Amino acid sequence: MVVSLRLPLISSLLSPASSRSPNFAFSRRALGISWRHQRPPLRLPLLSSPFSPRSSSTNTEIRTESSKNRVSEGPITPRSQDFNAWYLDVIANAELADYGPVRGTMVIRPYGYAIWEAIQEYLNVKFKETGHENMYFPQFIPYSFIEKEASHVEGFSPELALVTIGGGKELEEKLVVRPTSETIVNHMFTQWIHSHRDLPLMINQWANVTRWEMRTKPFVRTLEFLWQEGHTAHASPEEAEKEAIQMIDIYTKFSYEQAAIPVIAGRKSKVETFAGADKTYTIEAMMGDRKALQAGTSHNLGQNFSRAFGTQFTDENGQRQHVWQTSWAISTRFVGGIIMTHGDDGGLMLPPKLAPIQVVIIPIWKKDGDKAEVLNAASSVKEFLQTAGLKVKLDESDQKTAGWKFNFWEMKGVPLRIEIGPKDVASKSVVISRRDIPGKQGKVFGISMEPSVLEAYVKETLDEIQSSLLQQARTFRDSNIVDVSSYNELKEAISEGKWARGPWSASDQDELRVKEETGATIRCFPFEQPQGPKTCLMTGNPAEEVAIFAKSY
Amino acid sequence: MVVSLRLPLISSLLSPASSRSPNFAFSRRALGISWRHQRPPLRLPLLSSPFSPRSSSTNTEIRTESSKNRVSEGPITPRSQDFNAWYLDVIANAELADYGPVRGTMVIRPYGYAIWEAIQEYLNVKFKETGHENMYFPQFIPYSFIEKEASHVEGFSPELALVTIGGGKELEEKLVVRPTSETIVNHMFTQWIHSHRDLPLMINQWANVTRWEMRTKPFVRTLEFLWQEGHTAHASPEEAEKEAIQMIDIYTKFSYEQAAIPVIAGRKSKVETFAGADKTYTIEAMMGDRKALQAGTSHNLGQNFSRAFGTQFTDENGQRQHVWQTSWAISTRFVGGIIMTHGDDGGLMLPPKLAPIQVVIIPIWKKDGDKAEVLNAASSVKEFLQTAGLKVKLDESDQKTAGWKFNFWEMKGVPLRIEIGPKDVASKSVVISRRDIPGKQGKVFGISMEPSVLEAYVKETLDEIQSSLLQQARTFRDSNIVDVSSYNELKEAISEGKWARGPWSASDQDELRVKEETGATIRCFPFEQPQGPKTCLMTGNPAEEVAIFAKSY
Repeated sequence: MVVSLRLPLISSLLSPASSRSPNFAFSRRALGISWRHQRPPLRLPLLSSPFSPRSSSTNTEIRTESSKNRVSEGPITPRSQDFNAWYLDVIANAELADYGPVRGTMVIRPYGYAIWEAIQEYLNVKFKETGHENMYFPQFIPYSFIEKEASHVEGFSPELALVTIGGGKELEEKLVVRPTSETIVNHMFTQWIHSHRDLPLMINQWANVTRWEMRTKPFVRTLEFLWQEGHTAHASPEEAEKEAIQMIDIYTKFSYEQAAIPVIAGRKSKVETFAGADKTYTIEAMMGDRKALQAGTSHNLGQNFSRAFGTQFTDENGQRQHVWQTSWAISTRFVGGIIMTHGDDGGLMLPPKLAPIQVVIIPIWKKDGDKAEVLNAASSVKEFLQTAGLKVKLDESDQKTAGWKFNFWEMKGVPLRIEIGPKDVASKSVVISRRDIPGKQGKVFGISMEPSVLEAYVKETLDEIQSSLLQQARTFRDSNIVDVSSYNELKEAISEGKWARGPWSASDQDELRVKEETGATIRCFPFEQPQGPKTCLMTGNPAEEVAIFAKSY
Repeated sequence: MVVSLRLPLISSLLSPASSRSPNFAFSRRALGISWRHQRPPLRLPLLSSPFSPRSSSTNTEIRTESSKNRVSEGPITPRSQDFNAWYLDVIANAELADYGPVRGTMVIRPYGYAIWEAIQEYLNVKFKETGHENMYFPQFIPYSFIEKEASHVEGFSPELALVTIGGGKELEEKLVVRPTSETIVNHMFTQWIHSHRDLPLMINQWANVTRWEMRTKPFVRTLEFLWQEGHTAHASPEEAEKEAIQMIDIYTKFSYEQAAIPVIAGRKSKVETFAGADKTYTIEAMMGDRKALQAGTSHNLGQNFSRAFGTQFTDENGQRQHVWQTSWAISTRFVGGIIMTHGDDGGLMLPPKLAPIQVVIIPIWKKDGDKAEVLNAASSVKEFLQTAGLKVKLDESDQKTAGWKFNFWEMKGVPLRIEIGPKDVASKSVVISRRDIPGKQGKVFGISMEPSVLEAYVKETLDEIQSSLLQQARTFRDSNIVDVSSYNELKEAISEGKWARGPWSASDQDELRVKEETGATIRCFPFEQPQGPKTCLMTGNPAEEVAIFAKSY
């Protein structure tokens, strides 16, 4: 067959994106990732393309028929061997994303996008429950707006994409493609806010944003990404602070309960605070390589933007005041956090609550005579599990072995696999395997096919997997945070790839020195603080709080 | 009180957007709409701002407390007097959208965005049911891509916004901010499509797009707008054609059943076909001023883009072939279509199936002693209607009269109003008013408050309103389409502001001549064609089909 010869190797994906657009090469080198010279090209897995279900497919199904000649039997790079190479292999092989033609851009493929949709679905409800309304602001912002808030322009101007030509003409004022929307939001707020009765004003938008990043990495840092950005205005600093905390709490709860990521929530240091904020709250997640990922932020903007834009209201005493504001965001970066928290050498491992496919059913038959009854049973299991609200995929293609399918769906991170063979049909039972427990240990035989029994068993097991992923990540996190009481101890912890936690009351200068000398930054002053008096690890002066230092993405 | 003095008049909204950004004025003149000099400024309604519910509010509530000093008792411009002025007044007063700081851009406010969300919710399910998957492509497209398909570049190059500076540096190749995504989609499809087993490939994305339009109008034509764009690739022309038809059918069904807009579906003339398509199918809606609005399109792209981009597959005989493609889109323009189809002098009128608020409850009391029991009854009605899945708003503010509230919620287009006063509480009944039937005729007294009775009555009435809106629009449409058999009759119909329907087999030149001489274009060759032989209205030659001519937005 000539077909397989035409298929691109993973290596071609990671080299210039297409011979047709040499100017828009997106190389691994550009991503700051070195080539894996040590790896013979023959072992590189081929790409599959489980795009677009046939018309018979449902919502929750991802098509696999087309993959049959193309998914490699070969392994992806072991995680322990090269974390970055593993990460890129997982993204390619699990068909989460692809490189766009413009350097640093990313195409989010259906399986990756479905994870983002699951994130949206949960958060969108929480935002509305807490009184926020969705709306949409234009993405083009007059350049002059960005200049109005001093630290904001300083923070963002190096990263801007600028539209200078529109409709064939040079524009009088260049337009910024939004890197974030505080400026245009305030411009509009001035028109909507007049009295204290207009407050609080609490909105959110789901949108794309652009930041001209030099070192990019799929999901984690791309030139364009998707996010939600909440923006609120309040009549008092207390209310704004309460809102900023409320939203970081929602992100924290989401991370723990939905993504099974035991983030550490806290406050950013002054150095690491958002350009234009008084305070930035953050959730910091430990990835599998022990680097920190800033997974969501909530900013108390104080009156910085309202003063810059003149966003005022008349208070109950008839006095004009500037509003107090917040903004908060979570982006497609979070998908990268999920991959890097739970994935293993087998590929992706998805928390059941965010998995596009929670259960994959693999029918197994050898004799043609068995096929019909096995498929029949598998279909009926699929039916009733789907009716029970589960996201189920039945992989009934007959051109791949069961073993191949096991590997494929493990690589795609599906939490639970149901196997049904002729003997199972005879005994009216199924075999169930957990993605999070490899081999025989994760396999249970003889679970009854009786709908109510199987449904209960599957739901319970998915819950167990959800808890177990969180527990595993928590254990990993805790065993990689070292309490330090001196700079030497901090340096040692960081050099071992760990996070260092210690009392800190030193200067911004000292903080920058730590970054220069160790590569680590203050990720946050965690909300959960140890009791008792503390001594700054750097200066020996009294300290009010411990900070967490780590290298980060 | 000084507060009201600071509130902007509607006139200030329609003049330069803000004194702070004089370069970005977005005037009515720029919209191609003349000022209404005849209207004394004192009659202009003030803007309200029902933004952001308080924390106790739910998903379906829009806050009104803040509006109390600012919504005008005065009327909006009567529709019959000045349709365009009426349209802009409705958008401002019903708080659907606002002008962005950049000419031609629009801020979609929560109430307007909620209509878009209702549209998304319905279509997203239909797309998935028919086998499409959501994904996301980058919005920056290398300029060279746009040039690859000859008629595509011709159609779109005058409307492009170009990014020429990124990260502080002049870019080697300028980037197009997507006006539509066929080019980048094909670039990616070449990497994913190899064999006939990879087909059909059927995806959709919800995204923003940018077209540098010179004459803009909120929702109808804005510099940036939101849409969904479907893109599919198929192994045969028949399959592509079937898909293009399937999608225009979905749009048609949506228009009739959800939006109550009796669109006419058909095929575009060659002159009006999408830049790069073989065939364009369209749904054309008649607005209240009898102009046509192209409300959705589905394109059979043939092999135009696949040849330009080399999107090929190996067929079952091992031969390489170019794929056959479709694309299809509906945008926030549709919200404009809803406003201009159903609205009346009272303001917006929303079809119940897309209304953010389906039922508004107005409690009425005069004596303070009545307040508690009236509010109590109103709350309990709200509770059980909400539990029954309806979108309900209880307007319990006590700073506005009931009459004011009636007008306000009528202007916002809420389909059904429930009034509850002390006598109603005593008789355990309510008064119900329909938005679509003005005055006493639309008012029914003594509907039992008993949950099952009231719920059934409300649901049934909402269904009736939904049907009635469609019927009314259909009657209006049909009474404004004239069958013509000569160019003179066509000209007469168009000059009366009507649509002309007549047999057409004349040349593209003739079609352009009609446009020049009458301002009307062929909106479509409708799918529903009269039987029998036909004679071209222009040439007297035999014609296969009738075409519909109309002036359009």
